[in-house]
Amino acid sequence: MATYQMGSGHAVPMTLFRDNRDRAVKAILEKLLSGLKFSTGNLVVLLEGGKDKSLYNTDVDYVFRQESYFQYLFGVKEPGCYGIIAIDVKTGEKKTVLFVPRFPEDYGTWMGELLSPADFRAMYEVDEVFYVDELNVYLERVEPKLILTLSGTNSDSGLTLQPPEFDGKEKYVTDCDLLYPILSECRVIKSPAEIEVLRYVAKVSSDAHIKVMKFMRPGRMEFEGESLFLHHSYSVGGCRHASYTCICGSGMNSSILHYGHAGAPNNRPVQDGDLCLFDMGANYCGYAADITCTFPANGKFTADQKFIYNAVLDARNAVMSTARDGVSWVDMHKLAGRVLLQRLAEGGVLKGDVEEMLEAGVSGIFQPHGLGHLIGLDVHDVGGYLPTEPKRPSEPWLSKLRFARILRAGMYVTIEPGCYFIDWVMDRALADPNIAKYINVEKFNSFRGFGGVRIEDDVLITQTGTENFALVPRTVDEIEATMSSA
Amino acid sequence: MATYQMGSGHAVPMTLFRDNRDRAVKAILEKLLSGLKFSTGNLVVLLEGGKDKSLYNTDVDYVFRQESYFQYLFGVKEPGCYGIIAIDVKTGEKKTVLFVPRFPEDYGTWMGELLSPADFRAMYEVDEVFYVDELNVYLERVEPKLILTLSGTNSDSGLTLQPPEFDGKEKYVTDCDLLYPILSECRVIKSPAEIEVLRYVAKVSSDAHIKVMKFMRPGRMEFEGESLFLHHSYSVGGCRHASYTCICGSGMNSSILHYGHAGAPNNRPVQDGDLCLFDMGANYCGYAADITCTFPANGKFTADQKFIYNAVLDARNAVMSTARDGVSWVDMHKLAGRVLLQRLAEGGVLKGDVEEMLEAGVSGIFQPHGLGHLIGLDVHDVGGYLPTEPKRPSEPWLSKLRFARILRAGMYVTIEPGCYFIDWVMDRALADPNIAKYINVEKFNSFRGFGGVRIEDDVLITQTGTENFALVPRTVDEIEATMSSA
Repeated sequence: MATYQMGSGHAVPMTLFRDNRDRAVKAILEKLLSGLKFSTGNLVVLLEGGKDKSLYNTDVDYVFRQESYFQYLFGVKEPGCYGIIAIDVKTGEKKTVLFVPRFPEDYGTWMGELLSPADFRAMYEVDEVFYVDELNVYLERVEPKLILTLSGTNSDSGLTLQPPEFDGKEKYVTDCDLLYPILSECRVIKSPAEIEVLRYVAKVSSDAHIKVMKFMRPGRMEFEGESLFLHHSYSVGGCRHASYTCICGSGMNSSILHYGHAGAPNNRPVQDGDLCLFDMGANYCGYAADITCTFPANGKFTADQKFIYNAVLDARNAVMSTARDGVSWVDMHKLAGRVLLQRLAEGGVLKGDVEEMLEAGVSGIFQPHGLGHLIGLDVHDVGGYLPTEPKRPSEPWLSKLRFARILRAGMYVTIEPGCYFIDWVMDRALADPNIAKYINVEKFNSFRGFGGVRIEDDVLITQTGTENFALVPRTVDEIEATMSSA
Repeated sequence: MATYQMGSGHAVPMTLFRDNRDRAVKAILEKLLSGLKFSTGNLVVLLEGGKDKSLYNTDVDYVFRQESYFQYLFGVKEPGCYGIIAIDVKTGEKKTVLFVPRFPEDYGTWMGELLSPADFRAMYEVDEVFYVDELNVYLERVEPKLILTLSGTNSDSGLTLQPPEFDGKEKYVTDCDLLYPILSECRVIKSPAEIEVLRYVAKVSSDAHIKVMKFMRPGRMEFEGESLFLHHSYSVGGCRHASYTCICGSGMNSSILHYGHAGAPNNRPVQDGDLCLFDMGANYCGYAADITCTFPANGKFTADQKFIYNAVLDARNAVMSTARDGVSWVDMHKLAGRVLLQRLAEGGVLKGDVEEMLEAGVSGIFQPHGLGHLIGLDVHDVGGYLPTEPKRPSEPWLSKLRFARILRAGMYVTIEPGCYFIDWVMDRALADPNIAKYINVEKFNSFRGFGGVRIEDDVLITQTGTENFALVPRTVDEIEATMSSA
């Protein structure tokens, strides 16, 4: 049985990708068969794998990461491939064919022994393997009545995947729009084998977070935490890639949602009294984790820190125990907001009726992002706003949601409520009479400079509830005990 | 004094980049002034900085790295900028102007407090800072007689940097060809401040190599070494990036020149008796290191390993003590080859006259790459084959050289002789009567499966010799002592 494995990491069976293909073909036939203009012959699904990307015009490449749809269907780690699923629409039989680059012999000196098509066939358990330059000949032989290629716009980035170019394309009927929503929907519900990979990468990431939590102390640089996380994930877990740039904010930086970017590269020394908000996730075989831990730099929460932390934790716990198959994600976002506002009101930061302030959007002042997102091969996974699914809400405090769907068993999501004190957002809140009337100004302003708290778990939705794959200390006591054991 | 600094890493003064600009302007005026069609007014040098690159159509970006020419002149860590040097051709006076992206207010929630132009002006010590959308207005005010933009082809990758697009470009006389060779030549000779950065990043990389050497043992995965190198470089040295993908080959993999790529991601368990060839270099403030250590996995060289290692070391020592200002790099390549062949002949692998076999290209069988390359902001730095410099040699055993120039004081190069036993290259050698006649077949074949040795240092060329910035154990005794102290 062929697998993908790094060191002693999880052995990902190639049957995972075969099952993905089966699911995709089933969905394609269900959606499209009745509308096809032919009832015999081949329907071909053709995807282009990712290519090496150079750093500007130099000969240094970024460490390669496979394109996610291609990974989903073929699980191929090499750049420069094409993949085909050829479906006989009459019988439903299908063949999986991979096309790999052909290299001149002397590439062997630089890349190691060049693999033959037979090697690739065994490694990825596909039906046939040819060289990319044989794609044209293959298509001529298969005579596809229709070729489905992949193109579509990512609802998080707004960026569009371009359909592939290939020799002889003009000779065939092609469609580049039908496939994207179908494959995206397939990716939303995780298979048992995918769930095991996701469980693995979340465990590796959790262990790395714990290591970082034990390591960080006042005086250490934020990026030392990033580096330790990456090191544990790779050396112990076999994860060469992080799923996104590590966010390692201390003090005020803990309230910057995407801290860690090139202009603010986790380069502050952590101070005594700081909160640390570390949002980091490893990647294994393309599959992502995305976990946030917030903890006090010196290992002991102050009263204010405990108050805000527990408010967020209560919001998280409420969602964790309510979410399940059939529940609306928008309702979960509201639930988290309601609990947060309730706690903030109890603590004297807010005043007035919680339902009223929720509707007025007050929770968006403290948590200016959505409750979470789908996660899978992409950290912000696809399938959020498909044409057949609920549209993005327009209210400002809901509009940041990355999906607005009814939860289904097999969905895998982050649950990541937060509470941040961001100067310019606070100023805007105080300037808006519809918001300001709920605010106890003095208490509210006393949190300026506090930073922020986020608690982010990676959660499988089941028929009856949730299963949390992020296994990290979550209560104040658990965190303090973990840090004191360092 | 403004600096770039990560943690307690080297504080890179912004005057480094000002000095680079001074040097560039001097070179531009020297080369171009007499040919200009105007004797008063502004000559403008306009460069576009690197932009964020997304992973396919997702909202995940690669961790940003600045484009090297832009880094050379402006030292800016943020993406999406433009930079201008406006030169009054009559007085020679110049102004440095940076153009930074303008973000909407709510980006502050995601990126942290948005910096003002005045903040950028102080951070990078330039004369003026405007927003990118003000570039057009700026140019209208300065009325450049000629705008030099940057475009050219990298001689290592064959890839071309495209000239920048900007609003109003069509209103000006622009030239995109003149600048590239001038700036490339400027980058070849390192300034005192650049040398200190290069010395720092080589020291960080050396220390990381020593850590890895002490850590690696039979049973550990190759990628554990990669991970430890990256971790030390980042957490201790403040180097967020490696200069290239780590090559961590053990056993047979030590003979694969660019092992570690996506298809062979350093994923073999190291075995007792293996040689490990680890080629890894950190990057600090854009500046590169590129160091290779070869060592026995179990800490003790076998007789064969010692023989080949010392042959390569002798080649390295010969070059190290001969290279200096005025010496031909091609001659250094030949010198390394001559010493290697001499030692292999002494050891009974080869037979016959060493000068004869050198001319026949026998050294290329064992070292199918050049002796080394220029290094600086790019690991394979620019300036190798500029129009005014010697062309790439055509002989197979010389044609892999990345430059063929006369060495000059201030050049910074890798010296990296190697000796590899690569099956298909060995087969080809035995099949070629002009090569095979120098080979003792039985002895030669006994090295099949041996792997390879490379010793790579980062070396400053001086008037009188060389200064090696790679501070790692190099002799057999030093390596064995280092590994036994683990």
